[in-house]
Amino acid sequence: MAQKYTRFIRAINTHLTTNTANPPRRAMKLLYPTSLAFNEQAITGFPGLTLHPYDVKAPIPDALVDAEILVTWTNTNLADAFARMKNLRWIQSLAAGPNDVLSAGFATSSSLTITTGSGLHDRTVAEHTLGLLLAAARRLHEMRDFQLQGKWPGHLGGPQPDRPAGSFRTLRDARVLIWGFGNIAKTLTPHLLALGATVRGAARRPGIRDGIEVFAEDELPALLPETDALVMILPGDPSTDNALNAERLALLPPHAWVVNVGRGSAVDEDALADALDAGRLGGAALDVFKTEPLPEGSRLWKTKNLIVSPHAAGGRPQGAEELIVENLKRFLAGEELKNVI
Amino acid sequence: MAQKYTRFIRAINTHLTTNTANPPRRAMKLLYPTSLAFNEQAITGFPGLTLHPYDVKAPIPDALVDAEILVTWTNTNLADAFARMKNLRWIQSLAAGPNDVLSAGFATSSSLTITTGSGLHDRTVAEHTLGLLLAAARRLHEMRDFQLQGKWPGHLGGPQPDRPAGSFRTLRDARVLIWGFGNIAKTLTPHLLALGATVRGAARRPGIRDGIEVFAEDELPALLPETDALVMILPGDPSTDNALNAERLALLPPHAWVVNVGRGSAVDEDALADALDAGRLGGAALDVFKTEPLPEGSRLWKTKNLIVSPHAAGGRPQGAEELIVENLKRFLAGEELKNVI
Repeated sequence: MAQKYTRFIRAINTHLTTNTANPPRRAMKLLYPTSLAFNEQAITGFPGLTLHPYDVKAPIPDALVDAEILVTWTNTNLADAFARMKNLRWIQSLAAGPNDVLSAGFATSSSLTITTGSGLHDRTVAEHTLGLLLAAARRLHEMRDFQLQGKWPGHLGGPQPDRPAGSFRTLRDARVLIWGFGNIAKTLTPHLLALGATVRGAARRPGIRDGIEVFAEDELPALLPETDALVMILPGDPSTDNALNAERLALLPPHAWVVNVGRGSAVDEDALADALDAGRLGGAALDVFKTEPLPEGSRLWKTKNLIVSPHAAGGRPQGAEELIVENLKRFLAGEELKNVI
Repeated sequence: MAQKYTRFIRAINTHLTTNTANPPRRAMKLLYPTSLAFNEQAITGFPGLTLHPYDVKAPIPDALVDAEILVTWTNTNLADAFARMKNLRWIQSLAAGPNDVLSAGFATSSSLTITTGSGLHDRTVAEHTLGLLLAAARRLHEMRDFQLQGKWPGHLGGPQPDRPAGSFRTLRDARVLIWGFGNIAKTLTPHLLALGATVRGAARRPGIRDGIEVFAEDELPALLPETDALVMILPGDPSTDNALNAERLALLPPHAWVVNVGRGSAVDEDALADALDAGRLGGAALDVFKTEPLPEGSRLWKTKNLIVSPHAAGGRPQGAEELIVENLKRFLAGEELKNVI
């Protein structure tokens, strides 16, 4: 009895001694990608956790295949990771939509959680979207076309009518509809309001979000005809395929612009090009396409009033370390992580 | 300044005091231009005042040459007006800088006041400036050049480094210096701050304006090297001629952009083109030029990383009626008008 007690106390003391300085948590490895500047120093306060940079374009090194946590960004080695990393409990993608993780074979299960980088791209995508909207309203693409010919586009400068009806020449008083109303839309909206636009939303689930009325998608037939600029931020999944089709395009006023910074799959590109070439739509600025890079022979290169942006809105996760720290805390506490798929 | 009107106003008041119920004000004519949409209904509450639309491209009709008040916008008939309108007491230009009024021969005197349209262009110019800054940061001009060749500018899209040192690729954390810190700068600044930029000002008179530190121009040697984007909104007068000269351009970091929406005379265009072609400067977006339209043979059309915008920032007075009402009240009360030259 006494002996048993002694062993027990000794065990506790050993535990406590270690615990005060460095609790003997089970050692855990977190692999972070060298494909972006990563501040390892920001990940502190997790005893037992070791951080390991890894190359996202090369096979996972043997010494790291037993890692429990994998952070991914622009990986090409996920098939290898799927085949060899059998201890993975959590994959933190830094992409807004981690299709690459899923298509490599990974799937959420009782032993594996996959989380997205939703939120890390809000500011960059919102900024690019604002830039495209202003470029559209101010016709910067047309100015450039004239410049390359050494010609002054007098019709775009000098005295202008102020906000004539049936035009999209400024964000002031412009009626902007944002279709797909998540974090990016919420980040974009204040900039549009500050410039004098009126903003409404459309999404699967209606409601008031950050003070903006978001309508259900079955209201689109009423919303589209009252839209000067349609901003599309839909995720890429089968349910959004060709969401902006010929029928819906026909409901937009002929001066309206479409800006797509979500996924290329959400726009029927041929229907869009038909509408633009026929002058039934004001213009379109696309940052995403069904096929990227946009193929050399695509008709979209030459479509009238169409601006091609090479998937440039995001691509720069901001605040990855903060998200990882937050999710590490939840992971160790057994709580639900942020941005679970 | 108010003294100028005293005699005139006293004459009116003499009439007014004789009948309080229906004061027999001396009849006064205000001519407003048909060169913009003008809401005559907004000018109410001025008994005795009659409003008359007029064509700014044709001689003033005989029946209107005795008008006391002339509102001008994009006139070509000011020499005729100067020769024939002998009763004019007040000219309200809707331009920010009414050089056309002055060069027609009009001058402020004890019997004539000239007021500008300062403030009517703040929102439009600020919006265009924001558009040019975003187009510069996001390289929309370069994307367009690729598009016209049917080529995908992969280097501008996909995964990108986030805010690398020595670059201007986003307004987030960008150091913006606004040179010429009046109403347009004050209107622009909140949009830049909301996108995460830091904003400083430079102007003839230093001080804190709307919370922004505005430095005296003799501080430019210290300010320019710490600038990622220089926004120029200087007025066009001899004191600002070639304000941005070769010496000052050389103080900007090689990645810095220059955006000029003030007056073309404020930039040494050859020095700017030299710096750009030599890669000593990131880029420039110019909405104003020494000669407008920019002549066909100008080297600026082809200068590397230079964006030509055809004096398109403003040109759409907003709130002209409100300014006129405010100034009419002051005019009749013998108070100093707003925006006196």
